[in-house]
Amino acid sequence: MFGFRNGWRGVLDSTVERLDRRSTQGILLRGGTVLGTSRTNPISEPDGVARITETLEVHELDGLIVIGGEGTLSASRVLSEEHGVPIIGVPKTIDNDLGGTDFTIGFSTAVDVATDAVDRLHSTAESHNRIMVLELMGRHVGWIATYAGLAGGADAILVPERSFDINKVCRHLKRRHGMGRSFSIVVVAEGAVPAEGTMALPDYETDDFGRPVLGGIANIIGPEIERQTGFETRVTVLGHVQRGGRPNATDRVLGSSLGKAAMDHAAEGNWGIMVGQDGAHVTTASLGEATRELKTVPSEMFETARVFFG
Amino acid sequence: MFGFRNGWRGVLDSTVERLDRRSTQGILLRGGTVLGTSRTNPISEPDGVARITETLEVHELDGLIVIGGEGTLSASRVLSEEHGVPIIGVPKTIDNDLGGTDFTIGFSTAVDVATDAVDRLHSTAESHNRIMVLELMGRHVGWIATYAGLAGGADAILVPERSFDINKVCRHLKRRHGMGRSFSIVVVAEGAVPAEGTMALPDYETDDFGRPVLGGIANIIGPEIERQTGFETRVTVLGHVQRGGRPNATDRVLGSSLGKAAMDHAAEGNWGIMVGQDGAHVTTASLGEATRELKTVPSEMFETARVFFG
Amino acid sequence: MFGFRNGWRGVLDSTVERLDRRSTQGILLRGGTVLGTSRTNPISEPDGVARITETLEVHELDGLIVIGGEGTLSASRVLSEEHGVPIIGVPKTIDNDLGGTDFTIGFSTAVDVATDAVDRLHSTAESHNRIMVLELMGRHVGWIATYAGLAGGADAILVPERSFDINKVCRHLKRRHGMGRSFSIVVVAEGAVPAEGTMALPDYETDDFGRPVLGGIANIIGPEIERQTGFETRVTVLGHVQRGGRPNATDRVLGSSLGKAAMDHAAEGNWGIMVGQDGAHVTTASLGEATRELKTVPSEMFETARVFFG
Amino acid sequence: MFGFRNGWRGVLDSTVERLDRRSTQGILLRGGTVLGTSRTNPISEPDGVARITETLEVHELDGLIVIGGEGTLSASRVLSEEHGVPIIGVPKTIDNDLGGTDFTIGFSTAVDVATDAVDRLHSTAESHNRIMVLELMGRHVGWIATYAGLAGGADAILVPERSFDINKVCRHLKRRHGMGRSFSIVVVAEGAVPAEGTMALPDYETDDFGRPVLGGIANIIGPEIERQTGFETRVTVLGHVQRGGRPNATDRVLGSSLGKAAMDHAAEGNWGIMVGQDGAHVTTASLGEATRELKTVPSEMFETARVFFG
Repeated sequence: MFGFRNGWRGVLDSTVERLDRRSTQGILLRGGTVLGTSRTNPISEPDGVARITETLEVHELDGLIVIGGEGTLSASRVLSEEHGVPIIGVPKTIDNDLGGTDFTIGFSTAVDVATDAVDRLHSTAESHNRIMVLELMGRHVGWIATYAGLAGGADAILVPERSFDINKVCRHLKRRHGMGRSFSIVVVAEGAVPAEGTMALPDYETDDFGRPVLGGIANIIGPEIERQTGFETRVTVLGHVQRGGRPNATDRVLGSSLGKAAMDHAAEGNWGIMVGQDGAHVTTASLGEATRELKTVPSEMFETARVFFG
Repeated sequence: MFGFRNGWRGVLDSTVERLDRRSTQGILLRGGTVLGTSRTNPISEPDGVARITETLEVHELDGLIVIGGEGTLSASRVLSEEHGVPIIGVPKTIDNDLGGTDFTIGFSTAVDVATDAVDRLHSTAESHNRIMVLELMGRHVGWIATYAGLAGGADAILVPERSFDINKVCRHLKRRHGMGRSFSIVVVAEGAVPAEGTMALPDYETDDFGRPVLGGIANIIGPEIERQTGFETRVTVLGHVQRGGRPNATDRVLGSSLGKAAMDHAAEGNWGIMVGQDGAHVTTASLGEATRELKTVPSEMFETARVFFG
Repeated sequence: MFGFRNGWRGVLDSTVERLDRRSTQGILLRGGTVLGTSRTNPISEPDGVARITETLEVHELDGLIVIGGEGTLSASRVLSEEHGVPIIGVPKTIDNDLGGTDFTIGFSTAVDVATDAVDRLHSTAESHNRIMVLELMGRHVGWIATYAGLAGGADAILVPERSFDINKVCRHLKRRHGMGRSFSIVVVAEGAVPAEGTMALPDYETDDFGRPVLGGIANIIGPEIERQTGFETRVTVLGHVQRGGRPNATDRVLGSSLGKAAMDHAAEGNWGIMVGQDGAHVTTASLGEATRELKTVPSEMFETARVFFG
Repeated sequence: MFGFRNGWRGVLDSTVERLDRRSTQGILLRGGTVLGTSRTNPISEPDGVARITETLEVHELDGLIVIGGEGTLSASRVLSEEHGVPIIGVPKTIDNDLGGTDFTIGFSTAVDVATDAVDRLHSTAESHNRIMVLELMGRHVGWIATYAGLAGGADAILVPERSFDINKVCRHLKRRHGMGRSFSIVVVAEGAVPAEGTMALPDYETDDFGRPVLGGIANIIGPEIERQTGFETRVTVLGHVQRGGRPNATDRVLGSSLGKAAMDHAAEGNWGIMVGQDGAHVTTASLGEATRELKTVPSEMFETARVFFG
């Protein structure tokens, strides 16, 4: 049982390290990754596939257990389907955008952190008519914003799944304050984008989906909300605080369960799959099912409260 | 939309109170129950069914949305199936012992609290060869003990699902310490029972399942472990601390989702069901499926780590 | 016993509300202020002093117990010393910049929140050579940045008490990474300013102390650190998250102790003072001692670790 | 700079280990003690003083920085005053019973944990007329019970400083419930004892102070409260959960400050003292002042709320 440092980089460089009882002691409570990561895409590296195959041969490995998010597991799918590399995937990303599993490892802890921020903003209502804008992670999907926004009772939630009309948001906030509320919280996923023609935007590039890439959407809509509503508006960008810290119990149990299941499937030679969560059970999906499309927030969640705009 | 105070007691007494935006403001962060509870079983009350039917008629109610655990929903099943009372159930119990849902409302928060206790015990290893026994809730099922024990890295977990042999537990603890560990944590669900003939027990009664009812199992096995291992053993009984406090994000989102779904089903006249969680989706089951048998911890979870005894 | 809504605004407007067992029930766990605040300065309001005196007469009040920070208590000092208004001050501000007390109510909770953010950033070291910049509150003093930075083990802490040289900070960070560290955290108080001539700044105004008022210092130094070090740099602005949430035990005990002491002094007619903390005891100071100058972080704290620059 | 494993045991056995940047990395967030402890009293060990002196000579040490509570520092006082061993004490105990410092390292974190338990009990008021008894640490002093009880709004607090009359406590609880409260919390320090003649006690021994040593006072008064009041009473014994876990920001800053100060005093040859906290400053006291008598909770704190009995 070996580990590769820094993700695909370690596999390409064939630098293994033994994982045993001693080297993994005490990691249960540690967030982040013990093995490190890189942003290396093995498919686009020169001789990438060949080097990976060679690494497996040199170290006489049966296959790879690959732990990661959409990018990592998509590369795994190509390696598995097109090049026959024996791989079992484990879904680990705070984004929760993978198919084939109820939730991904890390998502629940990130939601806890984000919800705590919403809770704290709720009790700072010291001055009248103030708006708090909280930017949360989620470049392509609004899972964290949706869960933390619902859990924290946000008054408006903006997600990538639905382009928003800032004018509607502002009318909603003014209506709330007109009814006597002195305080509102707007939760916005970093990847939320305005509906076309609804808002003047600073210069921007577009991403693979043709949507504007707006550095710091909260810092763009904050001043606009202040302008339209006349209410003092403050911005918090929670950033990488969401990625770190001690994992919560849910994520630790999920990590242990999926890790154990991945080991069992490897022992049985059951490659080409991703292990996933189905309630209190472990399930499996093909790497294709897991990564074919981004898992977005189900539309029924947007019906839970009248705080989603788009 | 009305609420009944103190569970079935309020329905039997026909004392309603209006639930509206004003009366429910600010309850999102509050644990426990805003409406109160009682231990009233409406089936065994004199004229119970008749009085419930009358309450619905007097207040011109379409039906009841019943929020509770195994006892409450079992009574609901009888009222629904045998007496035609229109009921929709919502699964809310820290015990997580209901079918028809991934998890019940309250379970995740209770696991967080219990895991925090295990984590804290982990870092008090000040003296050599000390055993910590932590008693957690779970009279009939070991869900909290299993999740908190796995999440916290307990060295032995005892659950009602598997009667335990204290001699094996002690041998395991001695082996650990013989290998250089100076500290062990034993997590025990309050309903865990020794396998027959393995341990002398104080006087006891038996429960409906014919098992000994042992007040304070931790205080029984603690001294026995100290006696057999020779290691200083300390006991913590976490008790009702597990029931309270601010619900975590998972439970708040689950409560909002299931509450919304229950309202929708009521509006459509879809009675006789329990709403439940299926990953990020809401599902439904019949009240019979939900309550026919206690949902116990799946045996695959006991394979996750070699810390379960029985 | 009456309360005034929204600080001096309520006193000026003479709108009282009775504070009794019933109206104050359940506020122990609530952060923020139950009575609301305003930014009203009673001294600069037309007829401000006269209206305050009148309010006391109309409601037959013995005096005012004024709860607040530097601005509120400075106004109290003027009202007390120059106009004979009977006032007892209670130091409540997350800034901890008042004399006459060990710490002010709210500071400890704000430090907890800020430290939690530093802790979480610590475990997100997923990529090599990344710098995290965390902006914390503290416009004129660096108490929160100093305590959270020391508690969290920040690698550089920038405070208003010492103007910093960004070039030295960057050299320090490069040296760390040259020694094998792959990750650094820079904590910066919102009021920290670059030493003159050390850094090109965007257009700015100056504050009462002649220092540049820089909106978002973290967003100014973040890119500069990235430019000088070549390391990827990410910014978190924690903002009002620091002001809110359930107060910690320290702040609750301090609030109860000082509140009780203020009542006792009022009962004895001992006006013109501020109650304060001295370890586990309550002490008193004149309102002048409390507010004459901002209490800054003692220089000995800057010697605790080699992470302060200036 | 060396560390001794397991307290005085390590000094007596002369087993040192080097403490440097590498061996101390990452310990900031760890509770408990990295070096281990023992219950060895060096004074009562055969040749104890001689062996300690020899250890200092063999390793050419200037002196000892001793980190601990009342027992450890009392031994240090004897070694220092009577045998001339160069010692600087650092006050570290959750009991907060040492003089010469505002608070001891560890106390604040223990209070946080205990307060969290009180908070959680507060929201479990599911049934009418229930009493929760929470036993907290504190064998000789009631610091944790007092702080957590006041912070959590306990309805009765029993501490070693004042022997209690259980009949008065029960009358108080019945009066509360008679006024409509459905729930009460009794916080009891493990060392609280009944006033003579007020309560029948199980067999017991007496401690050095001539007071009964009652194993598990909560399990003794719980049933008595249930008997006298007729209200269902539940007991939680928090135990060693209070000792562990990640230290809070206050304790980490205090630990860093006092550690730094101890080093400075050692460098200056300033032995025979204990470093301590005075607000945000570090102070010093003689080892005699620190340990001559147990620092008990000041009587003024008992006046803060009408929940103390004795």
